[in-house]
Amino acid sequence: MSKYWSETVRNIKPYVPGEQPKDRKYIKLNTNENPYPPSPRALEAIRKAADETLRLYPDPSGDALRDALAARFGLARNKVFIGNGSDELLAFCFPAFFEPGGKPIVFAEITYSFYPVYADFFRTPYRLIPVDDGFNVPVEGYCGENGGVLIANPNAPTGRGLPLSDIERILRQNEKSVVILDEAYVDFGGESAAGLIDRYPNLLVIRTLSKSYSLAGLRVGFALGAADLIEGIIRVKDSINSYTVDRLAQAGAREAIADDAYFQETRARIMRTRDRVTRELEKSGFTVIPSQANFVFISHSRCAGRDLFHKLREKGILVRYFDKPKIDNYLRVSIGTDEEMDRFLEAAADLCRRGT
Amino acid sequence: MSKYWSETVRNIKPYVPGEQPKDRKYIKLNTNENPYPPSPRALEAIRKAADETLRLYPDPSGDALRDALAARFGLARNKVFIGNGSDELLAFCFPAFFEPGGKPIVFAEITYSFYPVYADFFRTPYRLIPVDDGFNVPVEGYCGENGGVLIANPNAPTGRGLPLSDIERILRQNEKSVVILDEAYVDFGGESAAGLIDRYPNLLVIRTLSKSYSLAGLRVGFALGAADLIEGIIRVKDSINSYTVDRLAQAGAREAIADDAYFQETRARIMRTRDRVTRELEKSGFTVIPSQANFVFISHSRCAGRDLFHKLREKGILVRYFDKPKIDNYLRVSIGTDEEMDRFLEAAADLCRRGT
Repeated sequence: MSKYWSETVRNIKPYVPGEQPKDRKYIKLNTNENPYPPSPRALEAIRKAADETLRLYPDPSGDALRDALAARFGLARNKVFIGNGSDELLAFCFPAFFEPGGKPIVFAEITYSFYPVYADFFRTPYRLIPVDDGFNVPVEGYCGENGGVLIANPNAPTGRGLPLSDIERILRQNEKSVVILDEAYVDFGGESAAGLIDRYPNLLVIRTLSKSYSLAGLRVGFALGAADLIEGIIRVKDSINSYTVDRLAQAGAREAIADDAYFQETRARIMRTRDRVTRELEKSGFTVIPSQANFVFISHSRCAGRDLFHKLREKGILVRYFDKPKIDNYLRVSIGTDEEMDRFLEAAADLCRRGT
Repeated sequence: MSKYWSETVRNIKPYVPGEQPKDRKYIKLNTNENPYPPSPRALEAIRKAADETLRLYPDPSGDALRDALAARFGLARNKVFIGNGSDELLAFCFPAFFEPGGKPIVFAEITYSFYPVYADFFRTPYRLIPVDDGFNVPVEGYCGENGGVLIANPNAPTGRGLPLSDIERILRQNEKSVVILDEAYVDFGGESAAGLIDRYPNLLVIRTLSKSYSLAGLRVGFALGAADLIEGIIRVKDSINSYTVDRLAQAGAREAIADDAYFQETRARIMRTRDRVTRELEKSGFTVIPSQANFVFISHSRCAGRDLFHKLREKGILVRYFDKPKIDNYLRVSIGTDEEMDRFLEAAADLCRRGT
């Protein structure tokens, strides 16, 4: 604590991202990175962009990348915006659409743990929607009076998805609120609401290239929504940092989006691995929450989640453990390559057989 | 205006950065970019970093780059932090150190026009310190009761610098406030306060690689200050975006810092050009504010600033014009190559001879 800190900074509990170990000895299944490299075309575009033009500022609104995304989703440019990862875009949504001290926004009791951090930082009141034992979120929870709605779909860290029919019901029941769909994981089998943008003025979809495009290290996310919602985000961006996405990231992201064949192949591979891993884990006695994401959320009746987390770490396998009520017996395990998952499966089965 | 916008977003007037024209036909002297390319070693480091590791998140705290900066400035790692450009770091300082609705922070009436934008966005009251006709800021202005102090040194858009003796006086007179020195332009002849960090717990220095390292397109800034001030900024960062500086930017910035010979050569060249341009402009009847930066702030008794701005644009030369009281007859002209400046000097002299 410092005498120079503001009251805000004294009181916040910042988000703690998953460990990024500095040596490479681990099988890294803890931060939902893609096990496959980025599109070779994207890497080549970045190398080409590493030239003398780096002395110049990037396009502050990233229009070439916006246009590529607009074409991909069949939207006008002014319904698309880019940011330094989807976390930044989500953060910008709070001061853009939610009132400090206003009506509480709503999100699930078990969801991405950055949401309450944003809310506390921007002094946005919030109400948690309780989930059942299988981490299902009741749609009714999103439908009462509120100051805004925030849904990770598929949800994190559970992997559970909501069908579009439920999303549409939520959109219709919240005409006065902005409904933010955080679709960070949607490319792994979820139902995207991107196709609904022209029909619902209160819908904002937030995406990232970190997971399904294997570009976590490049920092590119994007938002899709009605032009006035996008303009709200831009106004926040231009009150904090004119140039959030650098030249290399804009160039690489464009080419990654263009290389659709590579994208389709790698995401299909991850889904196949996930489904196989799910079956194997179930054979070993694990409870596996049905996942539409590039991770599985698992528990075992004979092995405490925390112990399993530590024992796996000792065996060189990093997974994510959340020391929080209702999920403190679970592990979130990112889907790696088949070889990585075989080593994980073997270690997990072995540890649980011995009753860790 | 949208019914979905928060009160904050309805009321803010976002910062408008200088034009980034999409075609390259202009001599671009409007956003204080460096006319020389980045260090070839930095570009090579970026190309090397464009590999399969981009699938992984960056180090969220950028420790390798922090260590390079710490070594350069003779500070411990925990007195250094990095951000997505210095604008982002400045933005983070507001919620970190200034109280919404608290005592007003102080900054000069004529200074970087992003400061009031940050203040309004984060609801920080502020008091402007009036400047004299030569844009000098009286040191006393920073020394009364306040909630924080923000100084661009050298100042923008004037180029005027404060000597370290004045800075130390301000630091001593403000033991209860954080004094932020925005040293974006200091490498072009200003006096840096970086060497005072270990003596003043209230001093925070903000720097950028955008100008003197020719890396505006890469988005890297850094902060130097006491460990608890740095920790305050990190807490804000981790409430908004865990990974603000991508892998390529971290790699390129490290190598740019390491290539000191290139840095010294290009900044010396810019200072020589600036001094020559100043003499030439004075010969053509311009008033030139003495500049310690990579730009000059100029006016001419026979040519209105706004007209000159438009006429120069027609001739393919972009400079910056601010339509604001006290400076609306001035132009801010970035220092380009000698060849670019010769074309600018010729055009400016010609226009003023004809009495634009």
